[in-house]
Amino acid sequence: MDKGRLEAFSDGVIAVIITIMVLEMKVPHAPTLAALCELWPVFLSYILSFVYVGIYWNNHHHMFKTVERINGRAMWANLHLLFWISLFPFVTAWMSENHFAAVPTALYGGVLLMAALAWPLLARELIACNGLDGALATALGRDAKGKLSIVLYALAIPLAFLNPWIACVLYVTVALVWFVPDRRMEKVAT
Amino acid sequence: MDKGRLEAFSDGVIAVIITIMVLEMKVPHAPTLAALCELWPVFLSYILSFVYVGIYWNNHHHMFKTVERINGRAMWANLHLLFWISLFPFVTAWMSENHFAAVPTALYGGVLLMAALAWPLLARELIACNGLDGALATALGRDAKGKLSIVLYALAIPLAFLNPWIACVLYVTVALVWFVPDRRMEKVAT
Amino acid sequence: MDKGRLEAFSDGVIAVIITIMVLEMKVPHAPTLAALCELWPVFLSYILSFVYVGIYWNNHHHMFKTVERINGRAMWANLHLLFWISLFPFVTAWMSENHFAAVPTALYGGVLLMAALAWPLLARELIACNGLDGALATALGRDAKGKLSIVLYALAIPLAFLNPWIACVLYVTVALVWFVPDRRMEKVAT
Amino acid sequence: MDKGRLEAFSDGVIAVIITIMVLEMKVPHAPTLAALCELWPVFLSYILSFVYVGIYWNNHHHMFKTVERINGRAMWANLHLLFWISLFPFVTAWMSENHFAAVPTALYGGVLLMAALAWPLLARELIACNGLDGALATALGRDAKGKLSIVLYALAIPLAFLNPWIACVLYVTVALVWFVPDRRMEKVAT
Repeated sequence: MDKGRLEAFSDGVIAVIITIMVLEMKVPHAPTLAALCELWPVFLSYILSFVYVGIYWNNHHHMFKTVERINGRAMWANLHLLFWISLFPFVTAWMSENHFAAVPTALYGGVLLMAALAWPLLARELIACNGLDGALATALGRDAKGKLSIVLYALAIPLAFLNPWIACVLYVTVALVWFVPDRRMEKVAT
Repeated sequence: MDKGRLEAFSDGVIAVIITIMVLEMKVPHAPTLAALCELWPVFLSYILSFVYVGIYWNNHHHMFKTVERINGRAMWANLHLLFWISLFPFVTAWMSENHFAAVPTALYGGVLLMAALAWPLLARELIACNGLDGALATALGRDAKGKLSIVLYALAIPLAFLNPWIACVLYVTVALVWFVPDRRMEKVAT
Repeated sequence: MDKGRLEAFSDGVIAVIITIMVLEMKVPHAPTLAALCELWPVFLSYILSFVYVGIYWNNHHHMFKTVERINGRAMWANLHLLFWISLFPFVTAWMSENHFAAVPTALYGGVLLMAALAWPLLARELIACNGLDGALATALGRDAKGKLSIVLYALAIPLAFLNPWIACVLYVTVALVWFVPDRRMEKVAT
Repeated sequence: MDKGRLEAFSDGVIAVIITIMVLEMKVPHAPTLAALCELWPVFLSYILSFVYVGIYWNNHHHMFKTVERINGRAMWANLHLLFWISLFPFVTAWMSENHFAAVPTALYGGVLLMAALAWPLLARELIACNGLDGALATALGRDAKGKLSIVLYALAIPLAFLNPWIACVLYVTVALVWFVPDRRMEKVAT
């Protein structure tokens, strides 16, 4: 089966998700700096979610470059991943409107965790139809970052009830882990 | 005529539909688990509709792989199908905001029924311009699933007035019918 | 210059436009047939606008199939057309929320008129960089439908102040004029 | 690395941004010309932002035509640019709802400035992986328009506090600077 339309469809879904998050940023009614500054939790969480969606798009791009074939199971594994990413706008809005209260901050981590768990499921299906000696299987052998992310999200969720800021620091940490070395690895690979 | 842009346009429309449904999920104002749990009908129907749109995208992908040519009639038959799918966010929101009340649950089935009826119309137009001995015509010879879906939707609509949960069970059943064997068929086909 | 990305971008914009119109359909709060039926102007105008956007997408597809090159002027002429189409959701919502009152119904015609006027401007730019003996120039020689549409829209706008339903009949008429013969012409062409 | 998916993803994001701005245009409740005319700041700023997004899409299209390779850094530089463009709907809505008050008008310029600064960053990354003697490096040698835009935005922000209309005139001026000569350059290039 052809991977082109799956890539195009995923690009479309991710492009819509990354863009509609801005619709959740309700415009302040007063035309003042003070009114704008009250939106700081909205802006911070918009940036964080934008970076996360960007990371998923980048990784999706890289993963699909390493495979040649897809099948029906891979399509559903891909839709499953997109499902959790599609909840980012919802949890971002809930977390920011409540100024990083405990429950919404934990739920944000919960959705990040589910997306992180959906990722190896998709990888497994892609390996299953592209062979164990393919480029993806090799790349996944060293998926330390994926496992670390899952551990950090799982830690962040209970810690959000202790202090939501600890959870937020963990979310930013995971984003940096993916953002920084990916650029280095890329540089080597080019 | 070239099918590439029709596929790309359909991918775009379906990607937007599957994603904007999340905009209908209004964020709860209180930052509590209780407030979140009150949204259960919204989440359940979001998942159901996400799966339905996913099924339509998968089937659309498969159907267009079997054809080579399209014409103006096929384009309109495709837009007709997209029209009914574009109503999914509306009926999903109405059904879930009213906690699966009878009329909205029946209307949800009505839109599913119309989309299910639009499907063979599209198939017929595609067969008409690709020939009766093509891959699509062969595949449609055994369209038992399509006919079963139409019967189950037609049953679900009046049953929703008796008890909306019977209708919901039927909607989930049809989704499973499409979801499960498609994966098997795929596995064989690969 | 390459027309591929312009087609892809236009497909994206038109796909978003045709889909977000459904977001303007506010879900009725009561779960009753009566509440749903009150939405009839919303549904009617959604269908009309969906068909109009579908017609523009079909014609856009056909027009760009006949050309090989584009330039910067054609890109802006294309964006100009997309600008007027992007106003369809706005005028559709205004017209339907006010049950086809005179001013909104006239404005709906005004936007249709502007889009209809943007069309030959785009065609002219495309002919300018593809040559007067190209397929597009030949096809446009008999652009009676385009001229008729412009006349009917220009008539509908003042008539909306007499009786908005006359304007609506004219809008439906133009849609049928494009919808019906296009299918026939297509059939001949295949 | 392949630039195709990055182009497709950027097209998708820009198509959604240019289209969802129309969702920020709240439909007036009264069906009168007076109610419509009250929306003039909304329409004016919608047109301005539509033209700006159109300029960015055109320039993005041109820039990526001159390059062959991309890497991870270029992907993030591209996402950084898209981030600032994604804020256009927000600042457009805030500025127009407040009838071009000082702070929102200055912020509008601030976001334009950040997008204008993101542009050479993206160009630098693209040059870094495509070579200093490539077409892009040559084209950027004469990036007087980019530098002029940055200066005008930086002037407009403080001037908005003196009189917001001065800032608006500068924003329109920059848009014209990009709009007009691009068409001429294009004509020569064809």
